[in-house]
Amino acid sequence: MAHLKSVLTFRPSPGTEAQRPAPADLYSACRRQTESLAASLSAEDQMVQSFADSSPAKWHQAHTSWFFETFILTPHLSGYRPLDTRFRDLFNSYYNAVGAQPDKALRNTFSRPGLEEVQKYRRHVDEHMDKLLRSSGVSDAALKLAELGIHHEQQHQELLVTDIKHAFWSNPLQPAYKPAAATPPASPPPQQRAQVSPENIYEIGAAGDAFHFDNEAPRHKVFLRAFRFASRPATCGEYLAFMDDRGYERPELWLSDGWKAVQARRWNAPLYWEKAGGEWFHFTCSGMCKVDEHEPVCHVSFFETDAFARWAGARLPTEFEWEVAATGVPIEGNLLENGEFHPAVAAGAKGDGPLQIFGDVWEWTASAYLPYPVFKPAAGALGEYNGKFMSGQMVLRGGSCVTPQSHIRASYRNFFPPETRWQFSGIRLADDSV
Amino acid sequence: MAHLKSVLTFRPSPGTEAQRPAPADLYSACRRQTESLAASLSAEDQMVQSFADSSPAKWHQAHTSWFFETFILTPHLSGYRPLDTRFRDLFNSYYNAVGAQPDKALRNTFSRPGLEEVQKYRRHVDEHMDKLLRSSGVSDAALKLAELGIHHEQQHQELLVTDIKHAFWSNPLQPAYKPAAATPPASPPPQQRAQVSPENIYEIGAAGDAFHFDNEAPRHKVFLRAFRFASRPATCGEYLAFMDDRGYERPELWLSDGWKAVQARRWNAPLYWEKAGGEWFHFTCSGMCKVDEHEPVCHVSFFETDAFARWAGARLPTEFEWEVAATGVPIEGNLLENGEFHPAVAAGAKGDGPLQIFGDVWEWTASAYLPYPVFKPAAGALGEYNGKFMSGQMVLRGGSCVTPQSHIRASYRNFFPPETRWQFSGIRLADDSV
Amino acid sequence: MAHLKSVLTFRPSPGTEAQRPAPADLYSACRRQTESLAASLSAEDQMVQSFADSSPAKWHQAHTSWFFETFILTPHLSGYRPLDTRFRDLFNSYYNAVGAQPDKALRNTFSRPGLEEVQKYRRHVDEHMDKLLRSSGVSDAALKLAELGIHHEQQHQELLVTDIKHAFWSNPLQPAYKPAAATPPASPPPQQRAQVSPENIYEIGAAGDAFHFDNEAPRHKVFLRAFRFASRPATCGEYLAFMDDRGYERPELWLSDGWKAVQARRWNAPLYWEKAGGEWFHFTCSGMCKVDEHEPVCHVSFFETDAFARWAGARLPTEFEWEVAATGVPIEGNLLENGEFHPAVAAGAKGDGPLQIFGDVWEWTASAYLPYPVFKPAAGALGEYNGKFMSGQMVLRGGSCVTPQSHIRASYRNFFPPETRWQFSGIRLADDSV
Amino acid sequence: MAHLKSVLTFRPSPGTEAQRPAPADLYSACRRQTESLAASLSAEDQMVQSFADSSPAKWHQAHTSWFFETFILTPHLSGYRPLDTRFRDLFNSYYNAVGAQPDKALRNTFSRPGLEEVQKYRRHVDEHMDKLLRSSGVSDAALKLAELGIHHEQQHQELLVTDIKHAFWSNPLQPAYKPAAATPPASPPPQQRAQVSPENIYEIGAAGDAFHFDNEAPRHKVFLRAFRFASRPATCGEYLAFMDDRGYERPELWLSDGWKAVQARRWNAPLYWEKAGGEWFHFTCSGMCKVDEHEPVCHVSFFETDAFARWAGARLPTEFEWEVAATGVPIEGNLLENGEFHPAVAAGAKGDGPLQIFGDVWEWTASAYLPYPVFKPAAGALGEYNGKFMSGQMVLRGGSCVTPQSHIRASYRNFFPPETRWQFSGIRLADDSV
Repeated sequence: MAHLKSVLTFRPSPGTEAQRPAPADLYSACRRQTESLAASLSAEDQMVQSFADSSPAKWHQAHTSWFFETFILTPHLSGYRPLDTRFRDLFNSYYNAVGAQPDKALRNTFSRPGLEEVQKYRRHVDEHMDKLLRSSGVSDAALKLAELGIHHEQQHQELLVTDIKHAFWSNPLQPAYKPAAATPPASPPPQQRAQVSPENIYEIGAAGDAFHFDNEAPRHKVFLRAFRFASRPATCGEYLAFMDDRGYERPELWLSDGWKAVQARRWNAPLYWEKAGGEWFHFTCSGMCKVDEHEPVCHVSFFETDAFARWAGARLPTEFEWEVAATGVPIEGNLLENGEFHPAVAAGAKGDGPLQIFGDVWEWTASAYLPYPVFKPAAGALGEYNGKFMSGQMVLRGGSCVTPQSHIRASYRNFFPPETRWQFSGIRLADDSV
Repeated sequence: MAHLKSVLTFRPSPGTEAQRPAPADLYSACRRQTESLAASLSAEDQMVQSFADSSPAKWHQAHTSWFFETFILTPHLSGYRPLDTRFRDLFNSYYNAVGAQPDKALRNTFSRPGLEEVQKYRRHVDEHMDKLLRSSGVSDAALKLAELGIHHEQQHQELLVTDIKHAFWSNPLQPAYKPAAATPPASPPPQQRAQVSPENIYEIGAAGDAFHFDNEAPRHKVFLRAFRFASRPATCGEYLAFMDDRGYERPELWLSDGWKAVQARRWNAPLYWEKAGGEWFHFTCSGMCKVDEHEPVCHVSFFETDAFARWAGARLPTEFEWEVAATGVPIEGNLLENGEFHPAVAAGAKGDGPLQIFGDVWEWTASAYLPYPVFKPAAGALGEYNGKFMSGQMVLRGGSCVTPQSHIRASYRNFFPPETRWQFSGIRLADDSV
Repeated sequence: MAHLKSVLTFRPSPGTEAQRPAPADLYSACRRQTESLAASLSAEDQMVQSFADSSPAKWHQAHTSWFFETFILTPHLSGYRPLDTRFRDLFNSYYNAVGAQPDKALRNTFSRPGLEEVQKYRRHVDEHMDKLLRSSGVSDAALKLAELGIHHEQQHQELLVTDIKHAFWSNPLQPAYKPAAATPPASPPPQQRAQVSPENIYEIGAAGDAFHFDNEAPRHKVFLRAFRFASRPATCGEYLAFMDDRGYERPELWLSDGWKAVQARRWNAPLYWEKAGGEWFHFTCSGMCKVDEHEPVCHVSFFETDAFARWAGARLPTEFEWEVAATGVPIEGNLLENGEFHPAVAAGAKGDGPLQIFGDVWEWTASAYLPYPVFKPAAGALGEYNGKFMSGQMVLRGGSCVTPQSHIRASYRNFFPPETRWQFSGIRLADDSV
Repeated sequence: MAHLKSVLTFRPSPGTEAQRPAPADLYSACRRQTESLAASLSAEDQMVQSFADSSPAKWHQAHTSWFFETFILTPHLSGYRPLDTRFRDLFNSYYNAVGAQPDKALRNTFSRPGLEEVQKYRRHVDEHMDKLLRSSGVSDAALKLAELGIHHEQQHQELLVTDIKHAFWSNPLQPAYKPAAATPPASPPPQQRAQVSPENIYEIGAAGDAFHFDNEAPRHKVFLRAFRFASRPATCGEYLAFMDDRGYERPELWLSDGWKAVQARRWNAPLYWEKAGGEWFHFTCSGMCKVDEHEPVCHVSFFETDAFARWAGARLPTEFEWEVAATGVPIEGNLLENGEFHPAVAAGAKGDGPLQIFGDVWEWTASAYLPYPVFKPAAGALGEYNGKFMSGQMVLRGGSCVTPQSHIRASYRNFFPPETRWQFSGIRLADDSV
């Protein structure tokens, strides 16, 4: 799946600015990446919305185009004519300032426009975006919005894979999205918790001019005690020990809402796991296969993560601790471009810093998703991008095996409600230095 | 839409038995009719399941094939090999005796098998059915089951159109399933109620050897008082008078459960109706158009039908009264083969018998769907066909504009829960002779 | 519990009309009977509404008074002044024509008026009813309504016991409503099914001048085939055989909606049953006790009744068959006045007619609750008494161990939705003569 | 209502330790205060649970006794015998380590034990607590737990009033809990926002030996920017301006989950408000009365608070900012002992510090309820007191008009889900110093 290797590099290394790709090329690379991810899916596959919070792959392709059309082409490209004016409402996700939106659960009724029409829509938007981005008169505002649009599309690349995994699992035939890789067996280094940094005031949040979402700013000071941080995410084997120790049956390990979720939803293992013949299997992007105890555990909710940490005599890091630990770690790892779409066994020598900071699994933190001090959402409709979701969600950090490499960074804040399991979410432990 | 004109004639007129088509030809005609109905739908259109009780068009095509495979080919064609053994569970609707079934609400996740694969499945079944039906050794049992399978497929032809209408209405773009017909304006004759038959013991239920479902038998005696029967179904104009008289706001007109439905679901008009600029429009298979007051009102629940009747100083006929009134009426009218998929203005001269008995709209009766005396469902899985639904539903009679002509008859019992509105269901009044 | 023995006799034996009690005495006896049933309940007990379809005992006492006040005193007693005008809305159950009603589920918030105030309300109504009923000028209309009011109160006597049983069961302490009786062990005669009557046209419905509800009329002709009718209700032992034969695990025994109920509600035994130490116990009005296999099984839904009948190779009688079988059977048995509030073991010699027709358990029939031909509900608010509930319910016949003796009769139609279990409902089998 | 004036003083002023009441006297004063609050309620009033998250007043009285019995008497008073061993499960709220608990929604079925029995239970516990607390050998551990038990009971004093207000509002008669006070009209000073403190590292959390809950500890450092803090809570008049400016109709003012709540629950005003004849009224503990625009607005959810702040061009303080602003403010104000149970118009001269910090209304903060760094819940069952609720809730600060004076303090953290409205919760604004 070499075609997924992205040439996108939004943050050129110092001294390489000159080689930075042109915006129009970055735009194009991002759009092609989306289409690569959808290339093996039939028009019918791209209709499936297997639960209300997921979206069909076709919708992801259309909505990302709508974003460019609505926020860049319409206001910034003089004379731009939409392909179909009805799409302005149809493919709006949640921007009330733009207008009404169809109920999210209806996205699986959008058989029209068909996939070919949506592909035509993408080309229509692409042609005009190319024209705009290559024009000498393109404004800084438009360029900034285009960069936002590219990052927005990358989020939907991740969601497209995440959603299609759930869609294929929901189909009783449980087809595979991609062929299984032949991965040689491997073992991870032991999980250790080491002190990362002394008690201090730290600067948290995005610094400098590089792209970031509004919710990563402003950079601000946070006082932190010294803490210890796990050397790698928890593995399936470690999680199985929790399960074998009756982790799902002991209320004292759980937050009250977590225990309610265990009982109401009859959780007894991570999402996608099922037991057969005394062994645990899980559904992956390559179909159902045996759980490898050495892999990072994935598809666990915040509640399960929190219960596991309590059982392990540890806790989750706050998002601030996580960011301190991640600062300076190179952005590389098992990310979307790897084409595996599955967490990999940690590899690293003794004495290395924390492993698998980026990629593999999103790491639930102990932090609720709240605005940073003096946070100001953008004016207008784009102010709805992140800010209005700042209640009822927990922060996740570090990206996963379905996150594009150029999309993730140490200050990146992902967020989901604590019962969420269909994301590629896993467990990083921390504890207090004593 | 001449291609929809069916050559199916299951009940030859007396003296024409010799010209009765061969079973294999009847089978083929039925199967082609299904495919004609789906011909204008894309693979994506055929994925849509806009609410849990509807089904995707592709599923209708697959499930009807499954019926032939499961109940005829597998037990009756020696050496038959299924195209894909996984379909036995996948396309089972509700036959517990055959095996487990996927949750009905999951049918919209069946992107695999794709439409082409389902079409291949249809051809595979067709080839073997043709071989079986044309073989000299075909058993009477197999022939009888094949006839049942054809009638089963006809039911799904009706459902396919009914479901796609709802699916297209649910899509915010509200596409049309077929072009609008240019119908010249017309007015129906006045609605009258005339006595049909004297007080007597009547024979009710299917008679003779012609095909019927198990729930139409056995033929049995029912004592009926004299009653009066409306000359045609109620029109949109008559229903608008009920609405204008605050029909949806007056609890005294409604059954208790009906009034709860009005309040909980905020009904204020039939399904598919909406008011714009002071006028009523409704969604049809040809898209949104103005309500024609002369047409039969359609897409009303039993509760609305019952309230309308009370408002009109009348009542609904029982299914027995309906059958007495329909006996001897020729089976013709605005049925599926007409290709309009919409109720038509009644046409008929003064002094005619009741108009629009067959076709146009299913007519809710005052009868709960219950077994006839000494009813015995078929042995085995096919005993689940009708019998297990005999609670909580009301009987409808007469077929609609999406019912195949050869499918309907005077003894035919359709049934739906009283709150159902997505069926082409309308109103026939009756009252007591005094 | 001798105080419960009622002197009410609404249907004097022929030749005893002269001794018929005065209406005011009948009224008073009925009212005292209600108060006897509540006598052992604290004010707090009388607040409990353990699920939305039940009512607190205090509410039953108030609402029955409201009925007399609203329908008799206010229109028929000149100069009548209500004790509290706010009660007109407060204690209205479901009569939309009288005015708005509080949501039924709120009845457990009615701590005010307190029990003493409600008892004062009862006395206020009683004094005026006595005055009205003893006045020489009382109209026939008022007398007829008073009789209806008495029968209405009797229905609430039954509901009071039925609801308090559920309320006490819901309390984790599971207190007893009455002391346990010392019943000597007994065995019922074997259950047999014998032909009752030949094929014929029968007159069904209330005849003569005796009191009946509007839904029992008009008397009308029904054609019935010959049928066989079980000699007594099914026992717990017979039901245990069904359970032991995996009755709750075999979908082929159940109506489709019944099977859904089994799965959704996890039914595996009648309501109030629980297994402990390998034995079945059930909650009774005298607390938790061991199931006696010889007693009629009770607290089963229509769905369970229907599944049991199918398993037994039988069916349920229609309400018409039941009425034919019950005609002429003396109205006696284990009824409310017995004070046991629990079904008793059948006693009867070989060759007797059907046993336990009246009392013990309500018997589910195969008939949906629908209007009789030419049924006309009363004019005005009282037309809402029965008629508006004629959808979605099944008919039960014969009364139970908590039905007042003078309340039940062969033509009496009780009705509940098919999933109902908190009523004292049991099983009478029938089948076809062949 | 002078009898409510509490003598409880848990935090003696320096130099007054000698006069500190004996623990047994503090205990007794607390218990009598609870009983004073229930004194005007009938046994029936004390049965009402008007929604699942509230509790009957009788239950509050029993559960607080259970707390002393379970955590102090049983382990610490040698030879203690419970009054009724069944109460250990019956009156357990949510302590899984103690044992099973009845479903919370069933509390309104607890007619047994009756109020008198519960009062006897209170006396039984009181006698033994008195004996224990006055014994020379009472351990420090027992004394510490007794202090916790007293604070626990104070929480239930507040809940008792909060719940009975909702219960009486739910009763269609809407009785008053207490007579209306004759309050002379008054106007509050204008709302201003002034800088409180400079950017700095602050110590947050309970300090010293005085009683506090585990969730207020440990005291720890937090870095804060300079901020401005409103001089008083927002008034009804200010909230009406928000409403008049279509505050409930403009999605851009709301968090996404808040906007969903507005639509799903049809919020258009605070809880307990209703419009009649063009004017706003609200239900109070003294019945329905006209909204006084000068009072603090109350019974608003976090979502409404947040939307109001956005509309006002401000934001909510974090719980840390709130604590900094409250530090050193005397603990006095309109609290439970005032006996008004309703927020009062702010009174204060120009130049005062922030008004109404304590009492009147709980103030929603911008902080999610999360553990403080190195938080450790108590060992055993009491570890469930606070810690397991640390997800999905927001912190409120400052107490309300139904909070006991000796119960509140600057470090006190209350917490409720963001949609909660039945608490006496209001609005304090803040913003950033620029």
